[in-house]
Amino acid sequence: MPYNELRKDYLLDRWVVIATERSRRPTDFAKPRPQTAQTAGCPMCVGNENMTPPALMLYQKDGDKITRSQDPLTGERSKDWLVRVIPNLYPAFSPPKQPEDAKQITKNKYLWSAVGHHEVLVESPNHEEDPAEAELPQLELVINAYIDRLKELSAKPYVKYVSIFRNHGLEAGASLSHAHSQVIATPMVPTIIREEQKAARTFYEENGKCIFCDIIEGEVKGPRLISEDHDFVVLAPYASVNPMEFWILPKKHAPNILDLTAPEVSAFAKNLKSSLKALKTLVNNPPYNYGIHLALNPESQDSYHWHLEVYPKLATWAGFEKSTGVYINTVTPETAAETLRKTLTP
Amino acid sequence: MPYNELRKDYLLDRWVVIATERSRRPTDFAKPRPQTAQTAGCPMCVGNENMTPPALMLYQKDGDKITRSQDPLTGERSKDWLVRVIPNLYPAFSPPKQPEDAKQITKNKYLWSAVGHHEVLVESPNHEEDPAEAELPQLELVINAYIDRLKELSAKPYVKYVSIFRNHGLEAGASLSHAHSQVIATPMVPTIIREEQKAARTFYEENGKCIFCDIIEGEVKGPRLISEDHDFVVLAPYASVNPMEFWILPKKHAPNILDLTAPEVSAFAKNLKSSLKALKTLVNNPPYNYGIHLALNPESQDSYHWHLEVYPKLATWAGFEKSTGVYINTVTPETAAETLRKTLTP
Repeated sequence: MPYNELRKDYLLDRWVVIATERSRRPTDFAKPRPQTAQTAGCPMCVGNENMTPPALMLYQKDGDKITRSQDPLTGERSKDWLVRVIPNLYPAFSPPKQPEDAKQITKNKYLWSAVGHHEVLVESPNHEEDPAEAELPQLELVINAYIDRLKELSAKPYVKYVSIFRNHGLEAGASLSHAHSQVIATPMVPTIIREEQKAARTFYEENGKCIFCDIIEGEVKGPRLISEDHDFVVLAPYASVNPMEFWILPKKHAPNILDLTAPEVSAFAKNLKSSLKALKTLVNNPPYNYGIHLALNPESQDSYHWHLEVYPKLATWAGFEKSTGVYINTVTPETAAETLRKTLTP
Repeated sequence: MPYNELRKDYLLDRWVVIATERSRRPTDFAKPRPQTAQTAGCPMCVGNENMTPPALMLYQKDGDKITRSQDPLTGERSKDWLVRVIPNLYPAFSPPKQPEDAKQITKNKYLWSAVGHHEVLVESPNHEEDPAEAELPQLELVINAYIDRLKELSAKPYVKYVSIFRNHGLEAGASLSHAHSQVIATPMVPTIIREEQKAARTFYEENGKCIFCDIIEGEVKGPRLISEDHDFVVLAPYASVNPMEFWILPKKHAPNILDLTAPEVSAFAKNLKSSLKALKTLVNNPPYNYGIHLALNPESQDSYHWHLEVYPKLATWAGFEKSTGVYINTVTPETAAETLRKTLTP
């Protein structure tokens, strides 16, 4: 086609120009990256636990088993942890200070109280840990910690959504370099997720089928597939707004990660590691963000399908994107998929 | 209020946490900025016109008057211009190559051809020109050039919207440092603008009034006003998603800039310069993007009200913002307004 393509997202009313006329090769984005920060004074490193509030949740090794506990509110904090979850010192959302507050979140159409939770999930005692290189058992612990935090937070009556995400690299917003994810529980279903859920419900009503199951069925046969195993597919979405964007989707329909089995956790860890490793190799450890998209609300159980979206940060959204909500992507999703597929190491 | 505020935009279903618990003072964002690039080899500098395609539009001085012309398709290009508009060498949207193409833009629900226009508007012969410091007559020429390009592009039957925007500084996406704006004409009304127009129409139907006229009426009396004169107000919007964000709105209701009078152009130039100058002084010349929001479609003439939105780039949108569409802003709009107001030089 003699013009750039203007593609619409599977669900959102979000458009992207796939700008082949100024197309870039993935390796064009490879550039020297700043060194990571030093561990001295890192509040997430072992030995510095007193620089942070007591842990809300800890995974510890007990012989062959992993046990779950938490720090006491006062007194000594554990130093022999494998994963450590703490409250964010500067929370965007904070827990109700008294029970009535949880019922008065909505002030008016334009103003709510930001009641919820904001946690930091330290992924490893190892400052330099990177999911692209991590040992699989450690990465499985991280995913199990996601599930445990989702279970606890989603049970609270004022929590309507839990966003689990990771920022990698300073340019992607990771102000501390020690390997960590974040968990934010919100009093409403956030805009993008709500729009996706709404579009997915409409598709379900019209077709009697989950749209993500349908997407997977179509994409596994096409040029945007990156990898596939018994449990997961990894693909570059049709209307990627980020160069080299990819999604990891479970083949089994489930609205969220609460019921993942141990083999599924293990398969998820494997796919997460291998795809992030391919990205790291291909583009010289670029900054990225990832986020899990899921549904907790009962009306989305059949129609919404959880997945993880990875957004490499290789472009700057400027005046056009910010004032129109239309994006320009200089790497076609087909090129992203092909180059990541070829870079994957089994 | 003991919690962060969760504020909704005037029109969009877009929410922002005004994070006072991690609040920052505007001057915290002041930091050394990289030097701008050299003029040698700059394709927008005088003398280098042959590095670009022929100008689509030129403003030239002819005695006391400014005349409008364009370069011939072949042969010598003018070197004595004040404003110069050229096609973008790597256009996101391109003109129809044959008339039929303009009628076949829509391929299907998920795919359109990116038919349209993508132009670069060189704001001055002076490489280092900055609207915060420019002479007002030159800035008036820039605004007149916006109007002329909007007039020409919006008359084309396949153009449904024209986005006029400016990227300032490398971190805000300005890959070339010579002062320039961009103009992109699209075959559809872009997402954010369409949502704003829809919400504005609903408000108009329910209240018989333009929502922006209503916003101006409310904000001029409140803590988010930055400045006000006979023709314009400058304010920090209630649910700013960017630290130090501000908007410039005309008091006279108009859906777009096509009918601006010469005194209004002059007042717009003055407000643009003084508010950008205050931002530059307060935060040490930060990168920013600005974009004009407007309506061309007949059904939005009464309900939509053009304005310019300025987004200083002082924060990094990370995993939470990108996967939820909910933003975190660490400067309250009230602080932004107060500090900009105090920094304004008359």
